Amino acid sequence: MRIIIAGGDGFCGWPTALRLSTAGHQVVLLDNLIRRRWDEELGTASLLPIAELEERVAAWEELTGASLGIELVDLTQTEPVYDVVERIQPDAIVHFGEQSSAPYSMIDAAHAISTQVNNVVGTLNLLFAIRDLVPNCHLVKLGTMGEYGTPNIDIEEGYLEVEHHGRRDRLPYPKQPGSFYHLSKVHDSHNILFACRVWGLRATDLNQGVVYNVQTPETASDPRLVTRYDYDSVFGTALNRFCVQAAMQQPITVYGDGGQTRGFIDLRDTVSCVQLALEHPAPPGELRVFNQFTEQWSVRSLAERVLRVATARGLSTEIVHLDNPRVEAESHYYNAAHSALLDLGLEPHPLTDETVAAMIELAVAHRERINFETTAPTIDWRTGGPPTVPASGDVLGSTV
Amino acid sequence: MRIIIAGGDGFCGWPTALRLSTAGHQVVLLDNLIRRRWDEELGTASLLPIAELEERVAAWEELTGASLGIELVDLTQTEPVYDVVERIQPDAIVHFGEQSSAPYSMIDAAHAISTQVNNVVGTLNLLFAIRDLVPNCHLVKLGTMGEYGTPNIDIEEGYLEVEHHGRRDRLPYPKQPGSFYHLSKVHDSHNILFACRVWGLRATDLNQGVVYNVQTPETASDPRLVTRYDYDSVFGTALNRFCVQAAMQQPITVYGDGGQTRGFIDLRDTVSCVQLALEHPAPPGELRVFNQFTEQWSVRSLAERVLRVATARGLSTEIVHLDNPRVEAESHYYNAAHSALLDLGLEPHPLTDETVAAMIELAVAHRERINFETTAPTIDWRTGGPPTVPASGDVLGSTV
Repeated sequence: MRIIIAGGDGFCGWPTALRLSTAGHQVVLLDNLIRRRWDEELGTASLLPIAELEERVAAWEELTGASLGIELVDLTQTEPVYDVVERIQPDAIVHFGEQSSAPYSMIDAAHAISTQVNNVVGTLNLLFAIRDLVPNCHLVKLGTMGEYGTPNIDIEEGYLEVEHHGRRDRLPYPKQPGSFYHLSKVHDSHNILFACRVWGLRATDLNQGVVYNVQTPETASDPRLVTRYDYDSVFGTALNRFCVQAAMQQPITVYGDGGQTRGFIDLRDTVSCVQLALEHPAPPGELRVFNQFTEQWSVRSLAERVLRVATARGLSTEIVHLDNPRVEAESHYYNAAHSALLDLGLEPHPLTDETVAAMIELAVAHRERINFETTAPTIDWRTGGPPTVPASGDVLGSTV
Repeated sequence: MRIIIAGGDGFCGWPTALRLSTAGHQVVLLDNLIRRRWDEELGTASLLPIAELEERVAAWEELTGASLGIELVDLTQTEPVYDVVERIQPDAIVHFGEQSSAPYSMIDAAHAISTQVNNVVGTLNLLFAIRDLVPNCHLVKLGTMGEYGTPNIDIEEGYLEVEHHGRRDRLPYPKQPGSFYHLSKVHDSHNILFACRVWGLRATDLNQGVVYNVQTPETASDPRLVTRYDYDSVFGTALNRFCVQAAMQQPITVYGDGGQTRGFIDLRDTVSCVQLALEHPAPPGELRVFNQFTEQWSVRSLAERVLRVATARGLSTEIVHLDNPRVEAESHYYNAAHSALLDLGLEPHPLTDETVAAMIELAVAHRERINFETTAPTIDWRTGGPPTVPASGDVLGSTV
């Protein structure tokens, strides 16, 4: 299968590319490298040093003999997107190419706008290019479990059977996203659903939980192939950040009470889920929605797990509760369906103490690279964050 | 009350401004005059000649002694929006300032993108400016009944009580919009709901039906005060277009079977609804949603009404059914709640033969201005429309 991976230089996109290449697919990485520029803007960096894109690709070819295409394209520009889709004639496009941080989107108007424009326009360009050039191409789009929010009813996979005043319908599941980033994914979902209905496109929306772990068999096979290990408060996800704090023998910081419950997934399962979706494509005209996570935990229970594993390894740490910079329920019902990917054959990696220990060991091994200040939350959902760039207009300009 | 009307130069915004001025409010019109440029792009024009914005405002002051402020601001630019909100310190902002044509948004990628960027970014800038400068300001946002689509259950006013697996919640009503324009309004609704929840803003979303009629007591009082009478296939709404076709003794063109049922509202009721929403503001933290229409009809029944009134006046016309350029159900359940504005005191103007006759007479009186070619649909939902501009990048550039 010829597959374009938009965002192929990113945390999830790069390991996915290696897995799909291993499976024998022809993979083209499409990226504008903006994630690396956001690091410069924020003063952050991956804990594991990541190679330049060309070096990664050369290393993979050296090790496996398989080549990966590189297309330096900004998805928000219509003509370059049409051009690359026309040349590659993909059977599928995996779309990781979006601004993926909730805190980043909450800094100020400029960052909210650049997030929504970048994400929504990029997806629109892909939809139009598929319609006009490769209408049978399967779009596999990364969404987020955060689109649903925390309703007081069970979360289903994309749709809800509703009975109301004696009549029935199957409707898009109502969404209550919790940041301008999560909102951008909801906007995408509505746009994609429309394109499937009106143009007969085929798409799969993977509503992914919070990803933890940073290694797959492929990325662990050579230092030049590692993917990002983000631990800062803007791009780092909860478990990864906790492991770095424990490795530094600093307090594990839980936002608020820690009763916030979410779906989580090991990076190894992320790449398997994408592969399963690709190899079992959605039928024409359908937006299929899979909830892509394997286990539910509260943030507090995750912190306790990291504390236990770290303490057993002789590291001195503790759990502290910070004032929650986010506006979110800290005690709520949460029960989300996630059977569709299991039905396709996913064999999950449940969280183990060994995975937590490996994350902590990686952090210990690279502790000279840790900028501990960046783990402190600086962006408040109510008031925004410290300006990281001089003028608002510049941010939009550099992003789109 | 100090009120900013974004889109104050437009079809609905202008008559609303005059009504609110009559009611004693201090009104500032905010507009970038882009609607007039879209006419140039499409080769279309209002049937009634509309005065330049400065001339309209001068005429209103001459006739009533009341002054209206003018701010030539592009809502997609953050700093000018902050600047005007800071200077005016509005008690309320009425937001009509969006690209409002479904067919325009379906022309191609560039027009879909410019519609969504223009509408979503403009609303985001208003939300942030309100949060940072006038947090008690009431945002009255024009949505559309088209956000709901045509579900097989009753449409409620913004929210749905759901029982699922024995648990209950009140959730945002699931949306199934029918064009990239309608999608942009759904995106807005989600963004506004989030801002109200997280920042405690107060907002009212007016999900308006299809507007017909082009006159209010204020606009009819002087030729310099008239508002737009659009009859073309891109910006003209069904009833207005049918009246022009009948006046020209040309066939009344119904798309497909004509069983498409929608909510409709007289322009006089539009301005009353906005006034009622303003004078009964939403409480802090709430996005209140009103379905702003007064009657439901099928498109076919509207065409039959125009045919009857026109025939009685000696005009020779007939109904013809065109292949539907849109992708929409032509036979479906439709029952939408619309009691909230009635509860606030709205006294509706039901559609009368006199209103239809007046619309036809206006068209007859100005028939030398009619470019009949522009009434034919040229934009297909499946394949888009003829390019109206040379390069896609230009459209985005000129709009945002």
